[in-house]
Amino acid sequence: MDKFKVVMNLVQKRQTTLGLGLIPLLTAGAEHVFSTFAFKCPCSEWSFLYGTVSLLVPAAALLILGYMLSNKTWKLFTGLCLNKSKLFRFKSMCGCLCVFLQITMTAMVAPVSWIAIALLNGVYFECIITGSNVTHLKSYLCHGRSDSCQTELHKLPCDKTAADRDAILTTIRAQSQVVGWLVIASIMLSSLLLTCVARCHSPVSYLQLKFWKAYSQKESNFFDSYATEHAKKLAERNIKSFFEMRTPESQATPPRYAWEKIS
Amino acid sequence: MDKFKVVMNLVQKRQTTLGLGLIPLLTAGAEHVFSTFAFKCPCSEWSFLYGTVSLLVPAAALLILGYMLSNKTWKLFTGLCLNKSKLFRFKSMCGCLCVFLQITMTAMVAPVSWIAIALLNGVYFECIITGSNVTHLKSYLCHGRSDSCQTELHKLPCDKTAADRDAILTTIRAQSQVVGWLVIASIMLSSLLLTCVARCHSPVSYLQLKFWKAYSQKESNFFDSYATEHAKKLAERNIKSFFEMRTPESQATPPRYAWEKIS
Amino acid sequence: MDKFKVVMNLVQKRQTTLGLGLIPLLTAGAEHVFSTFAFKCPCSEWSFLYGTVSLLVPAAALLILGYMLSNKTWKLFTGLCLNKSKLFRFKSMCGCLCVFLQITMTAMVAPVSWIAIALLNGVYFECIITGSNVTHLKSYLCHGRSDSCQTELHKLPCDKTAADRDAILTTIRAQSQVVGWLVIASIMLSSLLLTCVARCHSPVSYLQLKFWKAYSQKESNFFDSYATEHAKKLAERNIKSFFEMRTPESQATPPRYAWEKIS
Repeated sequence: MDKFKVVMNLVQKRQTTLGLGLIPLLTAGAEHVFSTFAFKCPCSEWSFLYGTVSLLVPAAALLILGYMLSNKTWKLFTGLCLNKSKLFRFKSMCGCLCVFLQITMTAMVAPVSWIAIALLNGVYFECIITGSNVTHLKSYLCHGRSDSCQTELHKLPCDKTAADRDAILTTIRAQSQVVGWLVIASIMLSSLLLTCVARCHSPVSYLQLKFWKAYSQKESNFFDSYATEHAKKLAERNIKSFFEMRTPESQATPPRYAWEKIS
Repeated sequence: MDKFKVVMNLVQKRQTTLGLGLIPLLTAGAEHVFSTFAFKCPCSEWSFLYGTVSLLVPAAALLILGYMLSNKTWKLFTGLCLNKSKLFRFKSMCGCLCVFLQITMTAMVAPVSWIAIALLNGVYFECIITGSNVTHLKSYLCHGRSDSCQTELHKLPCDKTAADRDAILTTIRAQSQVVGWLVIASIMLSSLLLTCVARCHSPVSYLQLKFWKAYSQKESNFFDSYATEHAKKLAERNIKSFFEMRTPESQATPPRYAWEKIS
Repeated sequence: MDKFKVVMNLVQKRQTTLGLGLIPLLTAGAEHVFSTFAFKCPCSEWSFLYGTVSLLVPAAALLILGYMLSNKTWKLFTGLCLNKSKLFRFKSMCGCLCVFLQITMTAMVAPVSWIAIALLNGVYFECIITGSNVTHLKSYLCHGRSDSCQTELHKLPCDKTAADRDAILTTIRAQSQVVGWLVIASIMLSSLLLTCVARCHSPVSYLQLKFWKAYSQKESNFFDSYATEHAKKLAERNIKSFFEMRTPESQATPPRYAWEKIS
């Protein structure tokens, strides 16, 4: 039982890391299901558009979902428009950008996983390349093959009996995987560098940062519980005074300027 | 139950060793899955690039992941840039390099496993070698074989009916395994020598080192629990004073210079 | 339950012996997996190098691993370089060599098992012998057979239809097993003799040696628990004094020369 607690503690400590590690796995599963059951290259002039949309739009949807599910986004945007003075001060704008970059980095995990896994899979890229109308690309792929190759290129993913089918498709898949690995490596490298630079310019030391993180989490927890408690009291007082038709007892609620200050 | 505790104790003691032993196993599993399901040599002029990227880029990604998941990296980098005097003193720079080397050694476990297992497997190396354009290599592999061998070499991994296919491919796989074993042996030897030299120049004796390791682990544990406790108190005080609209009672928090000193 | 305790007790007493007995079994399993799935003789001029590397380099890697996992290695090496006087005294140098020999004997268990099991298996030896360029060996193996035997010898392990294949290969396997048994016997004999000589020159009697072994194990256990306890106290004191911003109470820790003396 004691050992179980240790494990739970470890899981709780590494929550963020585990959560961020779970997202790519879930995305990979979703991508696998989608590419197996739903994706089917039309092998016509729609191939390019279909492939591009299937590759990029789910990623965009995941990015938007990431923004919507992040508390930080709403903390940042709420009341920003009415607070013109705050918006146009240089320092706070810089801070806003920093926070926005942080949110973006977290929200990018799922869409980048989607694109990378889709590229490693290769079927989307296959459909995009064979359906594209760039003559240069076509002549490169059909270099040294039969004359009908260029005109029949967009039919390749469906036509299982075409000449040189395997040769062309495996080349396209190889390109797709190369692009996928490069995407993964470059995203990871840039996020490592960004975090390094951010940490490097941090005015506080490592342990103090750790303490402030613990503090802000606790503060958020306590705020939730105290706010619920306070709201409950206030609501009960108001409803009670309505049914008993008495003027409500005065109960102190912090004024608006105090709320603005703590946000 | 008592014996179970002994086993758990042993596991906890040897945590680092077991963890480092688990990483190669996980990497081997991932490598096996990838080489079985996703890797497919294109057998064209893309073979060389594809094989190289599939061999090296995942290793680079694993290295970056290793750096990102290491606490020591962030402990080293946090606030380093603002602390110019710290950076340019010779002694602390040397210490930084030492710590960085330590982190690198731990982070290298996964990528080296990936490369070594991929080389022992042989399919990546096969693809790289048959796709390379080095005439010297080609003439060496085709020494004493048919004339078409050199021009058809890059098609070997796909074309199952080619003459001399088995003879050439098994030779390439043998070379791959030889290179893989040499990589493993040289990495292990160099890490043994590095650790030996580092330990040899350690100013403290073995038992004292053991004591300091135990101390630093305990200190880190205590810091976590005390910091959480302190953060909890501070947060509760602040939130309470906000809802009750009173000025918060003063609660002592260590000043910044103290934090810098202990980091 | 009582019988179970007796068994557990026996296991605990014979821990070292059982551990040393488990290593060859694990090595044998690893060797079996490797020779079945990864080892494939190339049957070309690479055969000799491939076989030799596959036989010896894993053994070297296991030897290095054995050194790295041994506590005694680090106890011996820690701080050795800074302690020149210790290094150049004849007696302590002799002692160092003795300890190193002891560590080597323990670390040799896994690599010797690997080589012995690989030789008993025979496929590595087959590959090495048929790929070697020694004419004397070739003429011996082909004595009284067809003329093409010598030139085609390196193709034997792959070519299943060659004449005299079975006769030559079983001979080579028999030689391999003979060499394997001789390796096992000679290693066991030499380790027996070494231990005999070492014990023979021991200044203390058998029972006293047994007592000292028990003593040193208990000492090590007590050191671990007391050091952990001391580290815990020290860490708690320091962290507490940091958060309460008081100067820490003085707590006695043994000075460095005391640590050196007990190591």
